[in-house]
Amino acid sequence: MLTENGDSRYMAAAIALSERGRGRTGANPNVGCIIVKKGIVVGRGWTQPGGRPHAEAMALEQAGAAARGADIYVTMEPCAHESTRGPTCSNLVIDAKPARVLVATLDVDERTRRHGIDRLGEAGIPVSIGLLEQEAHRTMAGFFMRLEKGRPHITLKLAMSLDGCIAMADGTSKWITGDQARRHAHLERARSDAILVGSGTLEADQPGLDVRLSGLEDRSPQPVVLGQSDAPDNWLRVDSPQAVADLKNVNWLLVEGGAGTAASFLNAGMVDRLLLYRAPIVIGGGLPGIADFGLESLEAAHGQWTRIERCDLGEDVLEIYEHAA
Amino acid sequence: MLTENGDSRYMAAAIALSERGRGRTGANPNVGCIIVKKGIVVGRGWTQPGGRPHAEAMALEQAGAAARGADIYVTMEPCAHESTRGPTCSNLVIDAKPARVLVATLDVDERTRRHGIDRLGEAGIPVSIGLLEQEAHRTMAGFFMRLEKGRPHITLKLAMSLDGCIAMADGTSKWITGDQARRHAHLERARSDAILVGSGTLEADQPGLDVRLSGLEDRSPQPVVLGQSDAPDNWLRVDSPQAVADLKNVNWLLVEGGAGTAASFLNAGMVDRLLLYRAPIVIGGGLPGIADFGLESLEAAHGQWTRIERCDLGEDVLEIYEHAA
Repeated sequence: MLTENGDSRYMAAAIALSERGRGRTGANPNVGCIIVKKGIVVGRGWTQPGGRPHAEAMALEQAGAAARGADIYVTMEPCAHESTRGPTCSNLVIDAKPARVLVATLDVDERTRRHGIDRLGEAGIPVSIGLLEQEAHRTMAGFFMRLEKGRPHITLKLAMSLDGCIAMADGTSKWITGDQARRHAHLERARSDAILVGSGTLEADQPGLDVRLSGLEDRSPQPVVLGQSDAPDNWLRVDSPQAVADLKNVNWLLVEGGAGTAASFLNAGMVDRLLLYRAPIVIGGGLPGIADFGLESLEAAHGQWTRIERCDLGEDVLEIYEHAA
Repeated sequence: MLTENGDSRYMAAAIALSERGRGRTGANPNVGCIIVKKGIVVGRGWTQPGGRPHAEAMALEQAGAAARGADIYVTMEPCAHESTRGPTCSNLVIDAKPARVLVATLDVDERTRRHGIDRLGEAGIPVSIGLLEQEAHRTMAGFFMRLEKGRPHITLKLAMSLDGCIAMADGTSKWITGDQARRHAHLERARSDAILVGSGTLEADQPGLDVRLSGLEDRSPQPVVLGQSDAPDNWLRVDSPQAVADLKNVNWLLVEGGAGTAASFLNAGMVDRLLLYRAPIVIGGGLPGIADFGLESLEAAHGQWTRIERCDLGEDVLEIYEHAA
């Protein structure tokens, strides 16, 4: 089955829907789904908080009888395993009798991988695989990282000056970036299951790590401290970067500092993404964002990071870098 | 006299020509000039090495009789003062009998300011002033800085990692940026009259500050050391940032490090432009590019710098920031 340009646009819309669940779906992938019939969107769904209903179930319910003969765009193949928590999506899709199903990426869960696709095929439904696969994979990277490496996807966030300082020498860091960049950083918190700082940062700054965006207050991630500090009420504590693997239902982890914590995650090879907010200011002799993490040579530093996004946020710049897989 | 879109394009071409003289015209402005008749370019000129011939003289000589009835685009008003070093450009222009003259910016030299324009007007030649004035001013900023503040225009260059380090903790800095960025940095050297490093950098690195670009070897700037080091052969030495005002025939000064030197120029309010090359690498605990320069508060750091350019150079990024006037 060949796909067309219009298919890419609908799949991009499904990926955009999947972003809505990011940081809220527990151990489940944040899938997105859109159902289109004769150019009209008849159903939209995304994995709901906690992981259920699944995206396909939500979209199919919305579409109702209109799903018959429609095209279903879904960012990951429909699940095929039985669960006490809800229906099996591949069954729901088969029952709906769509004209075709377009899947961006296969599952990596061995219980389901290719099984969902195979079931659809056996039921005579044409299936396409791989449309916008990279984009879909990136949007659900937390789930994939969890299954492939047994740990969350980890983002290191830094807000710094042009000369790479995250604070003045005396620790003053309010404010380096402007309002738009700070709001964006809070949005990134809302898209994370958990947020981590080192015990030094916790003791020095007593940071409130909640989401301070109107309407998203209930999306504050689980705060976690790395180190020996007593964890405040409702916080969790880990002894090492590796221990974040044990955090329950955390696909997306945001690391917000300080320099020693950043270094310990880099040293462990556990930073998947850099979120760099840079303000048009020069500090001079301020505090660096990343301490020595044992880099052996400049040569070894190259080839590790690829910029996947850059945008202006007011006077500040956001750059996002992804680590080589 | 109204100008049209085509006029902007020709003036932009004159500005591009003026760039050719940057760093080579001594105390003179690096002017550019283009002469257009019925849509055909009949003359192009730019201030020649050492300052003579002037751009208009060169373009008019090229145009010859074709300058009659043509449009002359020149980045600065033609000179009006007598000099033993060459002809007075406003006289040359009047003699050529052009249809009109378009000038991007007035001179600031009191011997000439408005005099060149006035002479043309008295001779009955229509004159327009101000087309692409900001762009022209930026391209000749060295000359204007020299006349307005009695010192060269000063650019601080840094080549750094994403986390703002210019070297590893042990001083290793080969190579942070890639080949394209390094070539661009050498081009910036070729566009400078002088290049300065601190005595610490001189002693530690013994840098060769020449232009290592094929065909531009003769454009290496005058090397200068700041501090108490003995200046190597052919180098000059200054005791303080302020002393660069005494460097003869230097409109454009490039400061290449180290961190203390950068700080001393910032502290003196003597950095007009930041040239930031950033490689997609993370160093961690490396050397900062700018030492403490006495910044009093983060608030005071804001509103100082505006980005005027950003481009990718291979995997690296170049950002150019301009200081608020």
